[in-house]
Amino acid sequence: MKIGILGGGQLGRMLIQNALKYDDEWFTIDPAEDAPCSGISNFTQGNFNNYENVFDFGKGKDVLSIEIEHVNVDALFELQESGIKVIPNPEIIETIQQKILQKKFYEKHQIPSPDFQIIQNKSECSFPLPFVQKMNTGGYDGKGVQIINNEQDLENLWNVPSVLESLVDIDKELSIIVAKNENGETKTFPVTEMVADPKLNLLDFNICPAHISEDVQDQINKIADQFIKAADSPGLFAIELFLDKAGKVWVNETAPRLHNSGHQTQDGNANSQFEQFYRVLKNLPLADTEATGFSGMLNLVGEENFRGKVKYEGLEEVLKLPKTYVHLYGKTETKPGRKMGHINVLADSREALLEKLIHIKSLVKVVS
Amino acid sequence: MKIGILGGGQLGRMLIQNALKYDDEWFTIDPAEDAPCSGISNFTQGNFNNYENVFDFGKGKDVLSIEIEHVNVDALFELQESGIKVIPNPEIIETIQQKILQKKFYEKHQIPSPDFQIIQNKSECSFPLPFVQKMNTGGYDGKGVQIINNEQDLENLWNVPSVLESLVDIDKELSIIVAKNENGETKTFPVTEMVADPKLNLLDFNICPAHISEDVQDQINKIADQFIKAADSPGLFAIELFLDKAGKVWVNETAPRLHNSGHQTQDGNANSQFEQFYRVLKNLPLADTEATGFSGMLNLVGEENFRGKVKYEGLEEVLKLPKTYVHLYGKTETKPGRKMGHINVLADSREALLEKLIHIKSLVKVVS
Repeated sequence: MKIGILGGGQLGRMLIQNALKYDDEWFTIDPAEDAPCSGISNFTQGNFNNYENVFDFGKGKDVLSIEIEHVNVDALFELQESGIKVIPNPEIIETIQQKILQKKFYEKHQIPSPDFQIIQNKSECSFPLPFVQKMNTGGYDGKGVQIINNEQDLENLWNVPSVLESLVDIDKELSIIVAKNENGETKTFPVTEMVADPKLNLLDFNICPAHISEDVQDQINKIADQFIKAADSPGLFAIELFLDKAGKVWVNETAPRLHNSGHQTQDGNANSQFEQFYRVLKNLPLADTEATGFSGMLNLVGEENFRGKVKYEGLEEVLKLPKTYVHLYGKTETKPGRKMGHINVLADSREALLEKLIHIKSLVKVVS
Repeated sequence: MKIGILGGGQLGRMLIQNALKYDDEWFTIDPAEDAPCSGISNFTQGNFNNYENVFDFGKGKDVLSIEIEHVNVDALFELQESGIKVIPNPEIIETIQQKILQKKFYEKHQIPSPDFQIIQNKSECSFPLPFVQKMNTGGYDGKGVQIINNEQDLENLWNVPSVLESLVDIDKELSIIVAKNENGETKTFPVTEMVADPKLNLLDFNICPAHISEDVQDQINKIADQFIKAADSPGLFAIELFLDKAGKVWVNETAPRLHNSGHQTQDGNANSQFEQFYRVLKNLPLADTEATGFSGMLNLVGEENFRGKVKYEGLEEVLKLPKTYVHLYGKTETKPGRKMGHINVLADSREALLEKLIHIKSLVKVVS
């Protein structure tokens, strides 16, 4: 089958890596000539935000999908119209692309998410302080999001269409990955806990399964169920959640694609998010997602003050550790905050896992 | 690092597939234009038995290795001489390529292997019946091997340089995979039991860990140790063994490369033979090989009477089964007996594993 993916980054690379155990032809498009997918697929250098580029790329594929949500959806609608299978539906990609539509989607389908105000420009702001401002478009990896704490911060409010959202008193950041195939079969992965690095605003650790109560698990199951019904589309979705200190779960945002919060499934679950997404693309029976124990993930992110040809210090020490799995993304150049790879870790207890993650973080540095 | 592999088949494909989690440049050479490695590496269409082809391919690589042992070793010696790292050493490849040299190697190093006579032609045969004839060169996947049971069979004796070997009264066929890196670190995988299909003379099931006594395990450990010392080379080696009905272990033959008997390590062990071989090639710390439970493998082999574009009947049923992992090799054409893929299975007991393997074998057919 000819499978086309918009985006040629690490998510696409790991998708194709896993799917090399099946017989398909993979096609990717990315603006970067040396994108992580370039050497392992039929690669087109092009702009996935450009109508013509996406339309030309999509023609003749059996299935078309994404590994990044900021793509030209008009072309996807057109390709779908012409009979090409697009997963997930362009409608849900469009909804998620725009923070305002995404927020209205949660409201419409009674999916719990924080109170909000929609503004087209700065002058419309009348939301009680403190709050979060999320730009309608252009946000990615924590960019396009800021916290407005007080009157003084209000001066920095971006003068663009945005969602203003009340701050959640966060106990934990959680994520659930849910998949649905065209036959309507759905399956979730165990809930993952994300321990963030406030400085880079990128995920830092994942811990799976999350340490949560039965009640919290029930709330999350209900949200996943509501979301997948409302999205009305085959696909694999990562729902990012806040658990507040009163024990209530809120949706922060959703990604209509493979997600950093699912990377530890490569080594810690009966099947990974990459296998599951492959099965969605081909409408195959969904895979079992059972965790084999405690698993965790640590992002390898370019250190501050280093730019250029990447070097991974301490990696050999890490490779000596049992049940520790290094995943690099085939990127030759590092820069501060760039996601260069991750390390998955397995352990027999949550405590042992955390200890191992912290130890590994102290060993390895992404420099140049 | 620029890593070149002679051979572009499934072993190379699975090696590269696993190694996509690291940052290296992969190069392969194979006579078949559509070889399994062709789309996922820098591919050269060429003959790995030809001196010029191998020499030209090897130039400029950091490490050169093999995924098939029938390669031109003269070129490998030359490349090694010129400073290119060749793993394993050309000496041990040459020894293993030729059944006569291989047999003498076991004798010299007191590695237990069945009694034998070496013949250059038919007329020299004076070995007591019954026996096995193994052609000195050209054997592969059970080809070039025949059993001579009686006087009448003697007429069919191949008139080529051969090893004649006494028949072992086989209780089980076993295999151990052992790896050694340049630092001298060595590690073995758990012993695997191979249940053969006598008709196609290809492996049929693997079962791991093998059901063997402590004494048999000790004999095997000793053999692996003797072999790796005698081979005096970094590399990953699969030692195929016979356990006879009196409880003694004999070496049948050794492969100086990745091996079918290790395929279940992809899903059943902390790390796979592919990861281990990668670490050997880069002289990294060797990976832990611990089995997570009972694992098995079933070869997907082209059915008799089917040639042409491959179809896998029953594969969707198989994908519904938990802890069952399908691995296809990216080959578009099937023919009788061609290895097209394999299926790995995990279970909580040996009995459950066998039941699952037999069930899967009844579900899936490789046709055209």
